[in-house]
Amino acid sequence: MEVIKRTAEMQEISLRLKREGRIIGLVPTMGYLHDGHLSLIKKARRENDIVIMSNFVNPLQFGPKEDFATYPRDLDRDNKSAESVGVDYVFAPANEEMYPQGYDTYVEVKGPITEKMCGKSRPGHFKGVTTVVLKLFLITQPDRAYFGQKDAQQAIVIRKMVTDLNVPVKIITCPIVREEDGLALSSRNTYLSSEERLQALALPRALSAGRDMIMKGETDPQKVRLHIKQMLESSPGIRVDYVVVVDGDNLSDLSAIKGKVLLAAAVYVGKTRLIDNIDLEV
Amino acid sequence: MEVIKRTAEMQEISLRLKREGRIIGLVPTMGYLHDGHLSLIKKARRENDIVIMSNFVNPLQFGPKEDFATYPRDLDRDNKSAESVGVDYVFAPANEEMYPQGYDTYVEVKGPITEKMCGKSRPGHFKGVTTVVLKLFLITQPDRAYFGQKDAQQAIVIRKMVTDLNVPVKIITCPIVREEDGLALSSRNTYLSSEERLQALALPRALSAGRDMIMKGETDPQKVRLHIKQMLESSPGIRVDYVVVVDGDNLSDLSAIKGKVLLAAAVYVGKTRLIDNIDLEV
Repeated sequence: MEVIKRTAEMQEISLRLKREGRIIGLVPTMGYLHDGHLSLIKKARRENDIVIMSNFVNPLQFGPKEDFATYPRDLDRDNKSAESVGVDYVFAPANEEMYPQGYDTYVEVKGPITEKMCGKSRPGHFKGVTTVVLKLFLITQPDRAYFGQKDAQQAIVIRKMVTDLNVPVKIITCPIVREEDGLALSSRNTYLSSEERLQALALPRALSAGRDMIMKGETDPQKVRLHIKQMLESSPGIRVDYVVVVDGDNLSDLSAIKGKVLLAAAVYVGKTRLIDNIDLEV
Repeated sequence: MEVIKRTAEMQEISLRLKREGRIIGLVPTMGYLHDGHLSLIKKARRENDIVIMSNFVNPLQFGPKEDFATYPRDLDRDNKSAESVGVDYVFAPANEEMYPQGYDTYVEVKGPITEKMCGKSRPGHFKGVTTVVLKLFLITQPDRAYFGQKDAQQAIVIRKMVTDLNVPVKIITCPIVREEDGLALSSRNTYLSSEERLQALALPRALSAGRDMIMKGETDPQKVRLHIKQMLESSPGIRVDYVVVVDGDNLSDLSAIKGKVLLAAAVYVGKTRLIDNIDLEV
């Protein structure tokens, strides 16, 4: 495995591999790898000749009051994990490599899919995501790119960008990986105190309860949403950011529950913001 | 020569050509070809294995009160001209191919280089340009792309986008092609009445006078700018939009004339907006 720090070098390698006819899979990460990331890498390993993992905490997708500075980082441990699951290249650029002095170009998906949910709570977040992801695509030239379903809205926004801009890459989303007790894996779980860690279980439990309602025949999205919201609001230590029950393809509002449905929520547990979701086909 | 109308087909051909190791040159145009366009194509023909010319009047780069509807079009004549200078593929998509229903993604270079000059007179223009050009790059996968120096600001904005987003394409600008009497070739010259056609000569003449001042030793950019502006303002039928004397690499203001300098102006002749420029190294 090679660790590449320079944008120009990574792009040169990627373009050479493409000329040689190799199929490239990219797994974009912000590092501090957990089993969720590793599941993406393993899938990429099975499906491509070359696996590139990017490891870059993207300042552009953090708001001014968010946790960019404190976001957990451990490059050495990440490199060991990446190597153990068969990554060929780790691309780990410094901020100045990705956004040199005078950087001024942005890629933005407009409209409801970036304005609601996390887009509402985190203005500018998805603009930062689409900008860095397009840069990573152009630097690493992947045939396929792998994203976790935990960031369901992110995956939908990236698919939209790829379709609109004619980016020749296939976007693959992989299921959420959870702890045994149900908490979705996230690098931010490391922020939680042991009390908060227990309180955080309210999030997967409330979403599961919403799914159970649907399984038992409930077709009114507002009733499901309200049930999830009330469960969360009555859970100690939880402050609700948003709860939605929406179309699983484009996040639009549903008049009735049918087809691909996404139950998604964001909550604060203490100062830590956690997101989770369940997608299902009805 | 093949004329391709579908985005997916053009991208498939381009990706196949790349896999086969062919070097692709792209000449993006809005059609109604003149000798300026043909000079770009001829250069692309000399430097690449495959020449793709796009022919698309991009609605996104026209303001609501601008000339999108009346912009001159003649696809048949364009195809004959393109074939005569050795184009391999003409990519001529319909609007709905480039911007299907629900299209919502934009690429934007921020900052002074898109805010001054044409960016000030035509808000949103360069956002339309960078969005379509990135799409064309992703669809046609060029190694090199050719732009006319007549749109000097456009070339600088595209270079900035390519650098910032790590697009693996080399941007090549080619000199302005002029009529014998000095008027820069432009598809919009077709709008001019015979009287306006004569009045329009004030534009290249004023810019030439500015260059002559510099050649004779003038180093104050404001004096040169004012001279050009006054010449234009005293010319019958001419209304000045802007005149600048700026850094030829990044359009920044100059305290003194030195290095790469761009003399650029936009004027209205009747209802027709014309731009022209002279770049020189001092």
